[in-house]
Amino acid sequence: MILEDTIVALATASGSGAIAVIRVSGPNALKFTAPIFNAKNKVSLLEQKSHTLQLGNIIDNHRIIDESLVSVFKGKRSYTGENTVEISCHGSPFIQQEIINLLLKQGCRSAKPGEFTLRAFLNGKMDLSQAEAVADLISSDNAASHQLAMQQMRGGFASEIQKLREELLNFASLIELELDFSEEDVEFANRDEFQQLITRIQKVLNKLIDSFAVGNVLKNGIPVAIVGEPNVGKSTLLNALLNEDRAIVSDIAGTTRDTIEDEISLGGIGFRFIDTAGIRETTDEIEGLGIQKTFQKIEQAQVVLYLFDANKVKTEKLNLQQVKTEVEKIKNRFPGKPLLIVANKTDVLTEAEKETFQQEIPELKLLSAKEKVGVEVLQENLLEFVNTGALRSNDTIVTNSRHYDSLLKAQEEINKVQEGLNMGLTGDLLAIDIRQALYYFGEITGEITTDDLLGNIFANFCIGK
Amino acid sequence: MILEDTIVALATASGSGAIAVIRVSGPNALKFTAPIFNAKNKVSLLEQKSHTLQLGNIIDNHRIIDESLVSVFKGKRSYTGENTVEISCHGSPFIQQEIINLLLKQGCRSAKPGEFTLRAFLNGKMDLSQAEAVADLISSDNAASHQLAMQQMRGGFASEIQKLREELLNFASLIELELDFSEEDVEFANRDEFQQLITRIQKVLNKLIDSFAVGNVLKNGIPVAIVGEPNVGKSTLLNALLNEDRAIVSDIAGTTRDTIEDEISLGGIGFRFIDTAGIRETTDEIEGLGIQKTFQKIEQAQVVLYLFDANKVKTEKLNLQQVKTEVEKIKNRFPGKPLLIVANKTDVLTEAEKETFQQEIPELKLLSAKEKVGVEVLQENLLEFVNTGALRSNDTIVTNSRHYDSLLKAQEEINKVQEGLNMGLTGDLLAIDIRQALYYFGEITGEITTDDLLGNIFANFCIGK
Repeated sequence: MILEDTIVALATASGSGAIAVIRVSGPNALKFTAPIFNAKNKVSLLEQKSHTLQLGNIIDNHRIIDESLVSVFKGKRSYTGENTVEISCHGSPFIQQEIINLLLKQGCRSAKPGEFTLRAFLNGKMDLSQAEAVADLISSDNAASHQLAMQQMRGGFASEIQKLREELLNFASLIELELDFSEEDVEFANRDEFQQLITRIQKVLNKLIDSFAVGNVLKNGIPVAIVGEPNVGKSTLLNALLNEDRAIVSDIAGTTRDTIEDEISLGGIGFRFIDTAGIRETTDEIEGLGIQKTFQKIEQAQVVLYLFDANKVKTEKLNLQQVKTEVEKIKNRFPGKPLLIVANKTDVLTEAEKETFQQEIPELKLLSAKEKVGVEVLQENLLEFVNTGALRSNDTIVTNSRHYDSLLKAQEEINKVQEGLNMGLTGDLLAIDIRQALYYFGEITGEITTDDLLGNIFANFCIGK
Repeated sequence: MILEDTIVALATASGSGAIAVIRVSGPNALKFTAPIFNAKNKVSLLEQKSHTLQLGNIIDNHRIIDESLVSVFKGKRSYTGENTVEISCHGSPFIQQEIINLLLKQGCRSAKPGEFTLRAFLNGKMDLSQAEAVADLISSDNAASHQLAMQQMRGGFASEIQKLREELLNFASLIELELDFSEEDVEFANRDEFQQLITRIQKVLNKLIDSFAVGNVLKNGIPVAIVGEPNVGKSTLLNALLNEDRAIVSDIAGTTRDTIEDEISLGGIGFRFIDTAGIRETTDEIEGLGIQKTFQKIEQAQVVLYLFDANKVKTEKLNLQQVKTEVEKIKNRFPGKPLLIVANKTDVLTEAEKETFQQEIPELKLLSAKEKVGVEVLQENLLEFVNTGALRSNDTIVTNSRHYDSLLKAQEEINKVQEGLNMGLTGDLLAIDIRQALYYFGEITGEITTDDLLGNIFANFCIGK
C-alpha cells in the first residue's frame, strides 16, 4: 500500500537560495531522519514534540553535511496527516542533494509530483477539490486566480455539494429500501420532500455551472483579441498597459501573421492579449487566411480591442469610413461581444481632428500609447467587461474544468431523476439515475476516485508538494 | 543603528516551488508578524515559545492570503541572535510577494544581501570567518569546496588564530606596561617565553599560508590546461570525464582561438579545464599569438593535459617525433608542472601500433574518449595530482583570499617582531609591530572591522541569508 513508504523531496524552488527545505513524510519519517541528525540539545528526534524545531548537524556517519533546522510534525497534525520532518538546510544544490541522498539511503523513496498532497487527501486532511486548489494556489500569479484558489482550498463549493450529496444519499437509501418491500407498495421516501431536494440540487447545479464561465476566465486570464494592422502600436500599447518597459515589443511584432499571446495583470485580474493580423480586405491569399484566423481568435476572445493608427488617417493612407466598415463587420459577426474601438498615436492629431474622429465614431477611445495618454481609461474599460462582482461577493465560483465536467454530468442525471419523478417512475428506476448522480458528486469531492483520476490530478503538481 | 530595524526577505530560491520561506528578523519581528497571522490555535505569536511552529492563516485585514506555517525563534537562540520569524508559505511568487508586502506595511524593511548573517556576526553568534563560510557553503558545488566551507563555518583556523592573538595581546600589554616603568629597566614580559610564542605563531602562520595554495584550488577548482589542436577531441574527452552527455561540445569547439573554461567535478573535487589552441609551430602570425596565449594558460594551470590525435599519426599527418618535441618544449618551459600526455582516438590503432606509441613515449596514456576507453585511468591520474591529503586529514586549510592577505601581513609584522627580538630592541619599539600584527589577526576573526570591510564581505551574499 502506497502509504507504507516514507517519501522525500525538495519542497522549495530548485536552484540556489539562502535556505532550502527538504520534506520527509511517512510512517518512518522520524525513524529515518533521526540517525542523520545530531541535535544541539542532544535529544533524539524521536523524542521531540510535534511542531517544534531543533538546530543541529546533518551527518553522514561522522562527516558533517550541514548545520540545519529540523521541524517535527506528528501524525494527524501534519500537512500530510502522517509523521513529517522538514529539514531547513543551507540552500546549495550540492547540500540539498547530499541530504536527499542520505535519506534515500536510510530507506526513504523519492516523492512523486504532488505525492505529499495526495497523502493529505488519502489521510482525510482535505477533500479532492481542496487538494486540487493547492496546485492552483501555487501557480496563481494574480490576485483573482489567487483568491479563487484560496476559496476552493478553504472548502469552496465542495462542502455544499457534499451536503447535498448526503441528503440525496439518504433518499437513495430510502428508495432502495422500498425495493425490498416492492410487493407491498410502500413509499419510505416522501416524494414531495424528494422533489424539493431535487429542485434545490438543480438550482445549485445551475448556479455552479454558470459560474464556470467567469471562474475559468478569471483563473486563466481574460482573453482579449487585439484586432489591428502591423505597426499600429500593439506592443507599445501592451507595455503602456503593463506600466513598465517589459521587453515584449519583439514578441508582438507585426512581422508574423500568426497569433501570439501575452498575459498581463490589471487590477488583480489576468488578461491574455491575443495578437491578430487584423481584418483589412486584401487580394493576397495568405492575408485572406490571416483574416479567417483573426475571426477565429475573436470568436475565442471575451473582449475585442479594435486598434487603428490615427496618423494613417491624418496622412490619408486610411480613412475613418474604412474603420467604420471594419468595426461594423466585427459587430455583425459577433453581436454580443464587448468591443473597444481605439485610435492609437493620437498625439499627432490637433484638437479639431480629435473632435472629428469622435464625431465620426462616438464610442472611439483616443489613445497615445507612446505618450501614455488614455491608458488609464482603457484599463478601466477593460476591467468593466469583467464580471468581478462574483469574485467580490464571495459567491462560489467553479474554476476547475474537471469539476465543471462532473457538475454537467450530475446535472444530466438529476434532470433524468426529475423526468422520472414527473412520469411517476417507480423507485427501482429512479434509483439508477440517483446513484449515477451521487457518483458524479462524489467525483468532485473525491469520495469516489479511481487510480487513474488521482494519477491525472497529482501528476500536474510540482514535486515536493 | 542598523540593528534597530526589523528586516524581511525571501530566504528560499526565487521562483515557484511547493513552499517558500520568508524570514523576518529584528526586535519587532514578532510584533510585526503577529497582526498578519491568525493561528489555528488562536494563540498570538507574541505568546509562542521559541523554536515552535504554528499553522494558521496569513491575513490582510480579513482577506486570507495563505495558509502558512510560522516558526518563532526568540533572541539569542535564533540564527541572527535576535527575534526571528520564518513564514513557510505556498510557493507561488504571487503569494511570496503579497506576504512580503504585508510585512513591509507593518514596518519591516527589505533586507540587504547577507544582512541576516551580518546580524549574526554583529550579535556575536559567529565570527567573521564563520560568516564568510556561510556564503561559501551556499555556493559550494562539490564535496571538496563543501567540506572546506563546513570546516571554516565550524570554527576552522580562526579559533587557533584567536587563541594566538590573545596570547600575543597578553605579551603586548606586559611590554607596554614596561614602558611606564622605562626608567627602572624592568621586564614584565619574559623574553624567552615571548620568543617561544613568536616561534609558535610563525609556525602556524607558515602552515596556514602554505595551505592557501591547496585551499584556493580546492575551493575554486583545479585548473587544468588542455593543450591540443582543434578537432583533437577535447569536448568528447570532457564529456567522457563527466560521464554524461552534457552538451558542452559546442562550448569547447576548436573554432575559436580564445580560451574557454569548463568545470566538472571528479571524485568530489572541482576541475576547471582550460582549452588552449595548442603549441604547434606555425608561420601564421595569429597562430603565433595563439601559442603565446597557450603558454600563459599553462603558466596559470596546476596540471597540463597534452592531447593529440592518434589517427593523425596513423594517417601520417603527424608523427610521434613532433609530439615528443612539443612535449619537451612544455617540460623545459614548465619543469615542475604535472603533465599528462594523452593520445586520443586510439580506437583506430592496431595492438602493434599501440605498442609502438607506448615505446616511443613511455608515459603516454592511450585513450578513446568516444569509446570511453582509458577514461577512468585518466580520472585517477588527475586526482593523483591533487593534494587531497590535507583535506582528508582535517588539517586547517585557508581558502579565503582576504584571510590569506591578512595572514601574509601578520606574518610580515611577526617577522619584524622577531628581528626586533634578535636585535634586542626595547619594548616600545617591539610594541608597535606587535600591535600591527594583532590588528591583522583581528581582521580575520572580525574583532577589528570597518564598515567598508563588512560592506564588501556581505555584498557578495545572496539576499535572504
